[in-house]
Amino acid sequence: MPAHPKAPEGADAAAWETLSRAMSELRALAGVSGLLGWDQETYMPPKASAARGEQVAAIEGAIHDRLASAEVRGALERLEAHPPEDADRAAAVRELSRDHAQAAAVPGALVRAIARAQSEGLEAWRVARQGEGFGRFAPALSRLLELRREQAAALLPVLGRPGGGPAPEPYDALLDLSEPGLRVVALEPLLRGLCAWLVPLLDRITARPPPDDSFLHGTFDGEAQWRFTLELLDLMGFDREAGRQDRSVHPFTVGLDPSDVRITTRIHEHLPLSAAFSTLHEAGHGLYEQQLPAALRQTVLCAAASNGLHESQSRLWENQVGRSLPFWRVALPRMARHLPQLSGVSPERFFRAVNRVERSLVRVEADEVTYNLHIVLRFELELLLLRGKLEVRDLPAAWDERSERLLGIRPPGEVEGVLQDIHWAWGAFGYFPSYTVGNLYAASLFAAARRALPGLEGAIERGELSGLKEWLGRNVHAVGRRRQAEEIVRAVTGQGLTDRDLREYLERKYLGELA
Amino acid sequence: MPAHPKAPEGADAAAWETLSRAMSELRALAGVSGLLGWDQETYMPPKASAARGEQVAAIEGAIHDRLASAEVRGALERLEAHPPEDADRAAAVRELSRDHAQAAAVPGALVRAIARAQSEGLEAWRVARQGEGFGRFAPALSRLLELRREQAAALLPVLGRPGGGPAPEPYDALLDLSEPGLRVVALEPLLRGLCAWLVPLLDRITARPPPDDSFLHGTFDGEAQWRFTLELLDLMGFDREAGRQDRSVHPFTVGLDPSDVRITTRIHEHLPLSAAFSTLHEAGHGLYEQQLPAALRQTVLCAAASNGLHESQSRLWENQVGRSLPFWRVALPRMARHLPQLSGVSPERFFRAVNRVERSLVRVEADEVTYNLHIVLRFELELLLLRGKLEVRDLPAAWDERSERLLGIRPPGEVEGVLQDIHWAWGAFGYFPSYTVGNLYAASLFAAARRALPGLEGAIERGELSGLKEWLGRNVHAVGRRRQAEEIVRAVTGQGLTDRDLREYLERKYLGELA
Repeated sequence: MPAHPKAPEGADAAAWETLSRAMSELRALAGVSGLLGWDQETYMPPKASAARGEQVAAIEGAIHDRLASAEVRGALERLEAHPPEDADRAAAVRELSRDHAQAAAVPGALVRAIARAQSEGLEAWRVARQGEGFGRFAPALSRLLELRREQAAALLPVLGRPGGGPAPEPYDALLDLSEPGLRVVALEPLLRGLCAWLVPLLDRITARPPPDDSFLHGTFDGEAQWRFTLELLDLMGFDREAGRQDRSVHPFTVGLDPSDVRITTRIHEHLPLSAAFSTLHEAGHGLYEQQLPAALRQTVLCAAASNGLHESQSRLWENQVGRSLPFWRVALPRMARHLPQLSGVSPERFFRAVNRVERSLVRVEADEVTYNLHIVLRFELELLLLRGKLEVRDLPAAWDERSERLLGIRPPGEVEGVLQDIHWAWGAFGYFPSYTVGNLYAASLFAAARRALPGLEGAIERGELSGLKEWLGRNVHAVGRRRQAEEIVRAVTGQGLTDRDLREYLERKYLGELA
Repeated sequence: MPAHPKAPEGADAAAWETLSRAMSELRALAGVSGLLGWDQETYMPPKASAARGEQVAAIEGAIHDRLASAEVRGALERLEAHPPEDADRAAAVRELSRDHAQAAAVPGALVRAIARAQSEGLEAWRVARQGEGFGRFAPALSRLLELRREQAAALLPVLGRPGGGPAPEPYDALLDLSEPGLRVVALEPLLRGLCAWLVPLLDRITARPPPDDSFLHGTFDGEAQWRFTLELLDLMGFDREAGRQDRSVHPFTVGLDPSDVRITTRIHEHLPLSAAFSTLHEAGHGLYEQQLPAALRQTVLCAAASNGLHESQSRLWENQVGRSLPFWRVALPRMARHLPQLSGVSPERFFRAVNRVERSLVRVEADEVTYNLHIVLRFELELLLLRGKLEVRDLPAAWDERSERLLGIRPPGEVEGVLQDIHWAWGAFGYFPSYTVGNLYAASLFAAARRALPGLEGAIERGELSGLKEWLGRNVHAVGRRRQAEEIVRAVTGQGLTDRDLREYLERKYLGELA
């Protein structure tokens, strides 16, 4: 596809010019918003929270106003009536049209009310976790639920019906914000099918004695861990001239531009895997951001296709690569140079240790087998909430019941149960499924990469990761938003969202290699 | 003055509400702009420059549009016709009106043309300094001069005539952006009078043998210097929970909000005074930002009154405090704890060494006696440029001639001469005088502080700096923009902009204490 599409003429050209200016400015403002978030979690002084809240609101307001403006609507209408011949321009009009419709559908007052309710929700959630319990959080959560339902109702009329399926429901409108085109009607049976083989697989694995990971106990110098994570970044081909790594409590990635991608990691002196896997995960996100189509940076197309596809990149590097034996054959000697107490450990022992599977209560610490069951639990609950079939006050009991059923373990308290995630505290219903979508895409994309790149495992073992990085860049990252996530995956793997490859991957690994 | 002024009624109340929202958003956007600048000089990855340029342009554009908007104009007209009774609101209307008039007077196309010319100017200046010479910079400088003249012409009609003086000239319009209310007609004779006693004073001082500063030669551990600067911040009462210090090539201060003030310093292992005085200087700026009237943060009043008044705060802490004997009686033992090679040095010897005066070529390295002569040189030249009485191509020769006349020294090359400052490279004509205004206000304010706070020197010697910090907070910082800079100074010192106190300070110090 050409980087500089040729110009249409007359009124169409003027309309394109208008959209082009708007998209360029919106991209810049999105980058600014990213910087505000990054700074807040890394360097912002503690007393600055209130002022930062106003700054974020001002930028989000400016983005909303620009996106929903009559000027943008007029130019879009012109170009929807006369679609540009150039494929990239047509795609840009389609995606901007989607963003515009969503922004215009939700009244500014509701946007502001949600922003306020999010602040209150986060505050109430923090206090609830510090000992006051779910009852302290429930009113704020109810308010967020009510506002999100209003938002969903406002979005439903502009929601597409892919494949001419049944009329969408409110949850679909929220799900679509994370995974454009994905609907409950497709997601629900997929997750049901996933559970059907995942639960028995977990039973089989956990019936075996756990691997020996005694060498991971002890104290591991924080500065040495940090230097190892920088070596991992270089190994993966993350460009540290077009990005950087810092420390934060909760690791995250934010791409201000392909030339400015910030990731964070966390260092625990007693958990030497934490920093390494955080870095692998976030740098997986980071490579997506660095390899976006920079030539299209003046359009909405220079962005990821969905949250789930983004997550697939982090999970692929963290799990398919980062929890493989070939990877630790190259990485462990390097890690041991920084942390000499690991120098007696063989890659095989290390490989087993980083693949320890257990029934755990906390999602963010879950292994790759259990993880999706945590997501199913949350999806089931928030779907019931949105459908009005579960009251907020009944949420803790429903959580514990599902935890027992799905994970085989009951939380000892709310902090390890219904209060564990921050997502609902900012009203992010419909977001969790993206994590499982990411795990599924990761397995499918890695299976395709293995087919496309013969000798991939040998290359990984030699530390040659550029082939995989470039393959992902070409087939996934550089597409940007020109296609929807599922189309991008289908073009590479020949199939859409499926649990087949994840099943094959997990069974091969846990019933084969690690048996 | 009340923090929450009472509300007027009806249409006036609605107009105030409109302005209030706009001011609140403008303040937030100004904070965002500050963060973009801070990040650019501290943590931004090198490849991100182009994207950052677009982000800055988007924010500056949003600020300009909001400020110049018809909505703001309408509300201002209403409240100018019916001025609020409350003094703070009336002041807010006056100051916003000034900002609006300036923004509205300059066409958006000119604003963008200046932004582009600034990028080109900075690039050309860098290349010129790297060996290509002034001829490489001259075309970009000519273009900037032309655009600034256009800007000045656009601003002249909205420029106030304080005291009913003569019609303003183009230079006044640019000067007014840094020093509201200051005019060439007042500045020129002031600077002439300053030179009349400063040049002979410099002659007398430099006729003496220089003080011994041999103990400042050698290598001084960078980390230890850094820890000492943090101790200086705590000594000054800079709140590190509402701000932070980082490293940058050129030290600077940016206040995103009174709760979020960022300063930087630079560490040279062979110049142990560099970090200490950079920190004192920037933290002086920082205290101004931290002590702004936070209760008025939703208005334009929560900001400094002028660049010169801001500079007075940095210079007061750097020079009147930081180059005094009482200060080093408390600070040197602390410095020597971090840098043990200084432990044999007496405060008296140190005091002499940090007050070494010499004819130097570079403004930013100049001592407090010579410094203002560097400013006079630049003011004379840029006034001639703006008046069309000096051509850009003749600037290098004019620089060298004035350097010899004012400083008694001729630059060996352009890098130490006409190309030394970055200011003209971004077309900042009319900015330099603020440095001298700052030096004059610093001397006047410190003289007033000594009168108001008996035993101030003893307090400094004991490390009790909070009295001075609070006095400045009360009398200068917390006023914000409620009054113009000169009024703020006059209310404390009984006089406006004058060189009398600086002369007294320098003569007392260099002909008395240090004779």
